[in-house]
Amino acid sequence: MKNVAVILSGCGVYDGSEIYETVLTLLAIEQAGAKYRCFAPNIEQHHVINHLTGEVSDGETRNVLVESARIARGDVENIEVLVESEFDAIIFPGGFGAAKNLCDFAINGDQCTVNPLILNAAKSFAKASKPAGYMCIAPAMLPFIYGKNIQGTIGTDVGVASALTALGLSHQNCPVDGIVVDQQAKLVTTPAFMLATNISEAAQGINKLVAKVIELI
Amino acid sequence: MKNVAVILSGCGVYDGSEIYETVLTLLAIEQAGAKYRCFAPNIEQHHVINHLTGEVSDGETRNVLVESARIARGDVENIEVLVESEFDAIIFPGGFGAAKNLCDFAINGDQCTVNPLILNAAKSFAKASKPAGYMCIAPAMLPFIYGKNIQGTIGTDVGVASALTALGLSHQNCPVDGIVVDQQAKLVTTPAFMLATNISEAAQGINKLVAKVIELI
Repeated sequence: MKNVAVILSGCGVYDGSEIYETVLTLLAIEQAGAKYRCFAPNIEQHHVINHLTGEVSDGETRNVLVESARIARGDVENIEVLVESEFDAIIFPGGFGAAKNLCDFAINGDQCTVNPLILNAAKSFAKASKPAGYMCIAPAMLPFIYGKNIQGTIGTDVGVASALTALGLSHQNCPVDGIVVDQQAKLVTTPAFMLATNISEAAQGINKLVAKVIELI
Repeated sequence: MKNVAVILSGCGVYDGSEIYETVLTLLAIEQAGAKYRCFAPNIEQHHVINHLTGEVSDGETRNVLVESARIARGDVENIEVLVESEFDAIIFPGGFGAAKNLCDFAINGDQCTVNPLILNAAKSFAKASKPAGYMCIAPAMLPFIYGKNIQGTIGTDVGVASALTALGLSHQNCPVDGIVVDQQAKLVTTPAFMLATNISEAAQGINKLVAKVIELI
């Protein structure tokens, strides 16, 4: 059975993994007859956002691995124990956690750096020529993993696309129900909630991304 | 367009709404061509569970409405403003939050009481003969809303079923891909993660529950 590593960044769109994207990803993997394991870094979140008000919750701290466990019903592992050879592919759901906890693109833009454990895990799949899927804002990490001129998308946002182009991504505009495939890198991206206005819209692109990643195995 | 009120109880299976059940419910409502709004009570959670360890997070408090906003991408309202006449049906996803925050069945068993705002909202739909769906452990609230001899299921757990039978529920065993329908009460229940071992199993029963609730409108 094909086995996919799914990398989480917390639990909630504004400071962690986008919940709908993550659940749709896990469901699509199961429904394709594959299996998955979830991983997250054991680090403090960049911050905690009150998702009702959108404001930073001053003085509150939460751990990325512990909060990721909410989405995974406890079944999540420290990314330190992720062994690339045990998996056929890797997928990164989005949410601001991908750009605040896994890397700092949301804070530092084109001066972004990626968490070393995340970078190491992602690079190990790239080096092994194993397929990967990055959705929503997660493609911000791609130039650091694959180098320059990799094809990918974060949708149609001009500002974000410009920052990623400055980092070396070959950005292509893409609708919410589409995917961009870099065949040589075996890399699949989709805008998800960079463009989606509801769950079923997001599902269209995410289902295609998961299907393509699994096809590329 | 048919409009469904979805009642949340936090964010995470052990102290709030079960995330997969909630997302699958919202997706099924959308895919049936209906719409929804999410509501939750503005109260403190019974407790906070570290979902990685399963232990109570001592000294930590979280608010049910604020945490529910994580699942709803911020789009959740205080249940105090829920007006039954604006909706055609009501659905309660499960998770321990339904049995710790919306009522206290997880703590007090057959001595359970239901939060007054939740009870009032749920009863208003019952009184108006509008269809309702309760999944997982949420049917623990049914005897308080509908009185005795209502047909429903929490799956096949003998202990939980006995406690609910003592409260007056006419419990029927039901597999994870099934639903129990009380036609007179327009009430639909499914075991979801009382029995499901993965997301796609849960989806089978939840999709049937949502379809039946919408059909009964």
